[in-house]
Amino acid sequence: MLAESLYRLGATVAVYEPDPQAPLCQRTRYVTNAAWNDIEALRKFSQQCSRVTYEFENVESEPLQCMEFQLMPSMAVLAVAQHRAREKRFLRENGLPHVAFAEHVPDHPAILKTVRGGYDGKGQMRWTPGETPLSGPLVAEEIIDIEVEASCIVARSKTEEGVFPVFENEHRNHILDTTLVPASLPDEVLAAVQDVARETARKLDVTGLLTTEFFLTRHQPRRSPALQVDDWYLMVNELAPRPHNSGHVTRQACTFSQFDALARILLDVPLGQPRLLPGVWGMGNLLGEVYGTRSKLDLTPWAEHPTVREVCLYGKTQPRAGRKMGHFIVHGESRTAGLAEIAAFRAALTKT
Amino acid sequence: MLAESLYRLGATVAVYEPDPQAPLCQRTRYVTNAAWNDIEALRKFSQQCSRVTYEFENVESEPLQCMEFQLMPSMAVLAVAQHRAREKRFLRENGLPHVAFAEHVPDHPAILKTVRGGYDGKGQMRWTPGETPLSGPLVAEEIIDIEVEASCIVARSKTEEGVFPVFENEHRNHILDTTLVPASLPDEVLAAVQDVARETARKLDVTGLLTTEFFLTRHQPRRSPALQVDDWYLMVNELAPRPHNSGHVTRQACTFSQFDALARILLDVPLGQPRLLPGVWGMGNLLGEVYGTRSKLDLTPWAEHPTVREVCLYGKTQPRAGRKMGHFIVHGESRTAGLAEIAAFRAALTKT
Repeated sequence: MLAESLYRLGATVAVYEPDPQAPLCQRTRYVTNAAWNDIEALRKFSQQCSRVTYEFENVESEPLQCMEFQLMPSMAVLAVAQHRAREKRFLRENGLPHVAFAEHVPDHPAILKTVRGGYDGKGQMRWTPGETPLSGPLVAEEIIDIEVEASCIVARSKTEEGVFPVFENEHRNHILDTTLVPASLPDEVLAAVQDVARETARKLDVTGLLTTEFFLTRHQPRRSPALQVDDWYLMVNELAPRPHNSGHVTRQACTFSQFDALARILLDVPLGQPRLLPGVWGMGNLLGEVYGTRSKLDLTPWAEHPTVREVCLYGKTQPRAGRKMGHFIVHGESRTAGLAEIAAFRAALTKT
Repeated sequence: MLAESLYRLGATVAVYEPDPQAPLCQRTRYVTNAAWNDIEALRKFSQQCSRVTYEFENVESEPLQCMEFQLMPSMAVLAVAQHRAREKRFLRENGLPHVAFAEHVPDHPAILKTVRGGYDGKGQMRWTPGETPLSGPLVAEEIIDIEVEASCIVARSKTEEGVFPVFENEHRNHILDTTLVPASLPDEVLAAVQDVARETARKLDVTGLLTTEFFLTRHQPRRSPALQVDDWYLMVNELAPRPHNSGHVTRQACTFSQFDALARILLDVPLGQPRLLPGVWGMGNLLGEVYGTRSKLDLTPWAEHPTVREVCLYGKTQPRAGRKMGHFIVHGESRTAGLAEIAAFRAALTKT
């Protein structure tokens, strides 16, 4: 999806990807298939490029030294965002609202997360004293009674800063299930979320995209330094310095998408301010489960769901449970209608 | 742009293109570089594909026999649309409004056009008795006092038919300069244009896209069998069985684009009915002239033109006068504002 936005602006795209079967390798011309720590291949790749970005932060950052000056967001941003303990220390040191944490197993129930490599619920557990904790370096987070999960993407070039609207996210089995925009939160809370996201991106000095994920609750947390706005408490959960699954909704919901924004930044094209288009927009993920035993999705039910503005399939060949195979975006008159349409379309795809 | 829409629906794209320097060859993985009449290469290519379409109808159709059953629109459609005399005979035989024509040089002033290979004003001349006419097979058309040029794209699958809104087109030196939608014509005239476009696509039995270009005038033509609607006379000028330059505006102006429509048809995905989004939309072509002596466009002025929703560059490396290098799309409150923005943005790009 980023390649699409880059091509539109006339760029040439080269891809570094260990797996030759990965979708983008089937779709672009200039492909390097080599390991994340193959310094020779990385160096050769970087010589082709004027700018390099990444869609996945769980790569070793050491070997990327050779492309330090092309990397956007920078090595420093990557180093913080790929390591949960560094990320949380960064939030604490900068006075940003966050979930209270310790870098050791505590004496009370907590969410344990490995400091590296975790995503979609991998590398984390809800832990009670007496249970065997995760092995390896970890952080222990206060358990928050989450009422709403939200995310906010900030796009920063060398001279401009754009902020996307706040997305409301629903997870299922720790995997993003739906994103809705506008989020159903009071205006002051939405503004505070955007302010914290902007402040976080500034403090990290991001050039590129920064997605900040938030927990929101109306029960004051015991330990976490949350930001109170009216009767809401908000705190940063985690950071991703790249296009984010929740941001896929911007492909239809905004005057330009998160991918367009990053492409503009990478290519030194003016960024501008993304605006939300009228109505309610909902993004639903299509996980491997929707495919059942099939390897290809039958989109016939789309005919009965004209509110579905986009279906986007990523070209992955092996549908597996929990694997993100694609997404769709609906346009509704209301939040209720949007949510109903997401559920109905997904059910229709699953049935056939 | 079609590849983008195909990829979104999970397709694999293979390209047949004689010129290895052509933009798409730099952007896709499966590329065949061979001549349009290389039967062996065409056969091998067709064996990779379940469906084949074309973005350019000035190819010899004979060698395409080997992919007859994959071709969409069909060989029969291509044979009509790539040959002006056949196209005009088709319109006449089917009682569709068209510009009066003869297949010989007449005894009065006329527009002469070669029957094959003409586009963007190539292979045509305004001719007066006494002048040397074009050589080779030609058609001679009545000179129409054109007030408005319009186009209408019909998308047809095996089971569905979608009609895009009517575009109003302005040409400069015979090359499309701007497209506006909605067109500034009375509702009855717009409906008639869509009806004729639909009827033309049905009579041609198109599966895929058919763009029908129209001349509109309020001066009754002497010879042409025009369709009168109120005080307007409309007639078909020419047909293109593929995505059309004027249809680029649909990338922003409609719920889905001409490329999305063709991708859905090619992939047997439900088509649906494209809807026009609120406001006025204008597409401006970026010809080589805009580049001046530069090889790369400086998009810095975009910062001052927030109504520009999209800039799309095609990745062509050699800007030449008259060559279509890209386009941009503006969103305006009114027709006047839209036109002014197109002019202003193009001027700003040309200046820097």
